[in-house]
Amino acid sequence: MRKHLEIFPVTGLPEVAAGDDLAALIAEGTDLRDGDVVSVTSKIVSKAEGRLTYGTRQEAVDAELVRVVAQRGETRIVQTRHGLVMAAAGTDTSNTAPGTVLLLPVDPDASARDLRTALQERYDVNVGIVVTDTLGRPWRNGQTDLAIGAAGVRVVEDLRGTTDSHGNVLAVTEPALADEIAGASELVKGKADGVPVAVLRGLEDVVLPIGEHGPGARALVRDAEHDMFSLGTRESARAAVLHRQPPSGPRAADPALWSGLLTDVDGVRLEAADNAVTVFGDEPVTVGLVAERLAVLLHAEGYGVTVRPGPGSEATVTFGSRSG
Amino acid sequence: MRKHLEIFPVTGLPEVAAGDDLAALIAEGTDLRDGDVVSVTSKIVSKAEGRLTYGTRQEAVDAELVRVVAQRGETRIVQTRHGLVMAAAGTDTSNTAPGTVLLLPVDPDASARDLRTALQERYDVNVGIVVTDTLGRPWRNGQTDLAIGAAGVRVVEDLRGTTDSHGNVLAVTEPALADEIAGASELVKGKADGVPVAVLRGLEDVVLPIGEHGPGARALVRDAEHDMFSLGTRESARAAVLHRQPPSGPRAADPALWSGLLTDVDGVRLEAADNAVTVFGDEPVTVGLVAERLAVLLHAEGYGVTVRPGPGSEATVTFGSRSG
Repeated sequence: MRKHLEIFPVTGLPEVAAGDDLAALIAEGTDLRDGDVVSVTSKIVSKAEGRLTYGTRQEAVDAELVRVVAQRGETRIVQTRHGLVMAAAGTDTSNTAPGTVLLLPVDPDASARDLRTALQERYDVNVGIVVTDTLGRPWRNGQTDLAIGAAGVRVVEDLRGTTDSHGNVLAVTEPALADEIAGASELVKGKADGVPVAVLRGLEDVVLPIGEHGPGARALVRDAEHDMFSLGTRESARAAVLHRQPPSGPRAADPALWSGLLTDVDGVRLEAADNAVTVFGDEPVTVGLVAERLAVLLHAEGYGVTVRPGPGSEATVTFGSRSG
Repeated sequence: MRKHLEIFPVTGLPEVAAGDDLAALIAEGTDLRDGDVVSVTSKIVSKAEGRLTYGTRQEAVDAELVRVVAQRGETRIVQTRHGLVMAAAGTDTSNTAPGTVLLLPVDPDASARDLRTALQERYDVNVGIVVTDTLGRPWRNGQTDLAIGAAGVRVVEDLRGTTDSHGNVLAVTEPALADEIAGASELVKGKADGVPVAVLRGLEDVVLPIGEHGPGARALVRDAEHDMFSLGTRESARAAVLHRQPPSGPRAADPALWSGLLTDVDGVRLEAADNAVTVFGDEPVTVGLVAERLAVLLHAEGYGVTVRPGPGSEATVTFGSRSG
């Protein structure tokens, strides 16, 4: 248990420009102590690193994104090179000159490591660094600040397998410390006041020894492969018909997968083999409908799928691991 | 800008049981001041309210859920009566006796209001209350604590339309204060130590005057209707074929919606009317395939859809607003 946590803003920092020495600005702006965590808004890291580009915001987003996760109207939720899923790829046009767009740091974990090393070597203080940005989230209104870069802090507290005060094993509890630190620091930074740095004092056990930077905020990114929300609702359904991949290997499927498929359809039967299902019926148009429905269901389960109309009133849906 | 934030745990609380007076336990366990925010883990609110049920966890989840949002293996992400999207509907079997399951408070905002009123009336102190729980999230590893109940606090800071220090309008920034408060307090509570209450001092501007409880944490819940991730990737594609609703009114669609549909298909043409598209072709099985693909695309865009095979080698896809 931590006894007492203090969070205070670092005030009086000047406007940051390309090439500025953030370590000096921060160390000279406050009285850092060993074991402090310094929370730095990514915007000033980007500015110090000269991550300003010319053009429209849309052009900047196009250049920064790895894939589009979801889109409605003008809003594009994309995944960035860093693995972050966020609106507009983290590009920023507030606090920037017209016609310019500020991008995220190239590698916010590296930025955090550099800052930590500079503070340690030149100011003889062992602090943890969290680089923050503001992100929206599914299912909740409003945004919170999260950690997009980190150095010298335990980003996740792994409590799996430990016991609570009643002796029960805490099976799946891994508090995302670095994200909670980012959100906590936002409470004192405030968006409208231009206070981009805060210090958290009282988290000494979260700060790693000198020389150990830890896994960084990258460890907080979950692979799309392991995510139940790797695409938006709309994009997921579109992918099932427009971006389907062919099967690249045999794989068996549980027939329960297509239970319910024929409830409102007459005169159709399915014949399942190991990695194919053939749809037979009296009405060839209906055979096509059912075969395509089956293909969508299989795609949703992670299969590569191909549908081939047969010579008569049948169609075969072949499935297996994805080739792509 | 807030100048200084202190967060400290309320230690020495006894094990909470049904009927316990949380206001007394908290007020006597610490020295509360006007303007403090008290962060209370939902578990002790549930315990005090006697929200213990007998049976398996699965039975409890079935009873608590409103809809299943996503499922993989044993993991079910569901939406609760409160609108919260979370694993296992927030049910809890840690820190409980075998064969029992702890449920979330019936109305955590009401719990927060009751606690705030009791502290004000009996201990003459005006504090804000946040009731917290631990939730996973898409795209990120680890969990953070979020606000599932609140009273007397501004849950969201509405900065839309205000200007930053450069005079730019902050268009879409609404920090979810109550969620950041919940996460910040988790840093001192610690999961394994049984410290369910923390006090945040320095957020006086977030605390509302006596008698004003504010909108509660319910205001942080985004409607599924407005959410780009209202279903899991898999569930979204399954819904497009298994849980489709018929159209209930005429509605025009942009043909761009089905661009790309015929790129790998020969001998098929589409004829669009205001709220229907008819698919014609030489191969009736292929007509069925294309019609079903079109139906999936339209469903993904929010339309109610019906597919009807015609008498010959054609099928008509009718669409419009959803009836359900």
